[in-house]
Amino acid sequence: MQTLQQKASEWSGVPTNEAFSIDETNLFQKLGLQTFINLSTNFYNRVYDDEQEWFRSIFANSKKDEAIQNQYEFFVQRMGGPPLFSQRRGHPALIGRHRPFPVTHQAAERWLHHMQQALDTTPDIDDDSKIKMMNFFRHTAYFLVAGDELKNPNEQIPCKHAAGKDNS
Amino acid sequence: MQTLQQKASEWSGVPTNEAFSIDETNLFQKLGLQTFINLSTNFYNRVYDDEQEWFRSIFANSKKDEAIQNQYEFFVQRMGGPPLFSQRRGHPALIGRHRPFPVTHQAAERWLHHMQQALDTTPDIDDDSKIKMMNFFRHTAYFLVAGDELKNPNEQIPCKHAAGKDNS
Repeated sequence: MQTLQQKASEWSGVPTNEAFSIDETNLFQKLGLQTFINLSTNFYNRVYDDEQEWFRSIFANSKKDEAIQNQYEFFVQRMGGPPLFSQRRGHPALIGRHRPFPVTHQAAERWLHHMQQALDTTPDIDDDSKIKMMNFFRHTAYFLVAGDELKNPNEQIPCKHAAGKDNS
Repeated sequence: MQTLQQKASEWSGVPTNEAFSIDETNLFQKLGLQTFINLSTNFYNRVYDDEQEWFRSIFANSKKDEAIQNQYEFFVQRMGGPPLFSQRRGHPALIGRHRPFPVTHQAAERWLHHMQQALDTTPDIDDDSKIKMMNFFRHTAYFLVAGDELKNPNEQIPCKHAAGKDNS
């Protein structure tokens, strides 16, 4: 059976060592807090304005300013900065926290499309950092697609409660 | 609605700032890799020999040497060392990876019992590190209990597949 990591690498096309090349340099020290805030603000401005309603609707129950803060605090923590996310919200628990959302291949690609645009239009992100971050994001997006598929077995288990009921 | 973090703090009795006091010092630099290997070996020796069959059986489908490596690589990564876990297995994704297991309050307490014993009998762990780690473990154990409860809604949804079948 393929592991989450193997699926993430195969589906994203990003080998594990490239996905975690963000750990070779301290991107937080290099880019600074404000750049991460700008990046996440830029990203979610695009997401909440997405012309594709199916994607925009995934975020309909989340407040934009909270989504921005959750994201940049995680990025800062994961890329060499202080553990802002865990201090406020606990473990990242990426798969667990994405459980309410339909993280499909299509959704992963749309997320990555907006993130690429955001990286390209946020000032002060050098090309090397951009490549490292995009590899990390691409691998992580498909790691979450793989995690999302774990939900299905449970949903397909026949449940006692339903026996004899008509749920059609 | 309570967040995962709020439930973890309430149920464990460990406030968030104490849970993440592991981030105040670099425990990996202080203790060294071998101490983490010894701790996880000590811990899983106890778990796999547990006289309580209900707890031992949770680990029956996992190999002990793999369980040891997964654990110390995560601890090393989370406590200031190199990202050994992610390089090999990807994101920790604590809730997602614990999904196959019944992480109940009772199981959390049993896990913590063995970890306290392991900490107390592994050489070269000073009292301050021990307290910081135990607070982190206690909070995290209940974070996972909270994460485990997320599974239930899905399981209780009546499923179409089962309609008319007798699953008793």
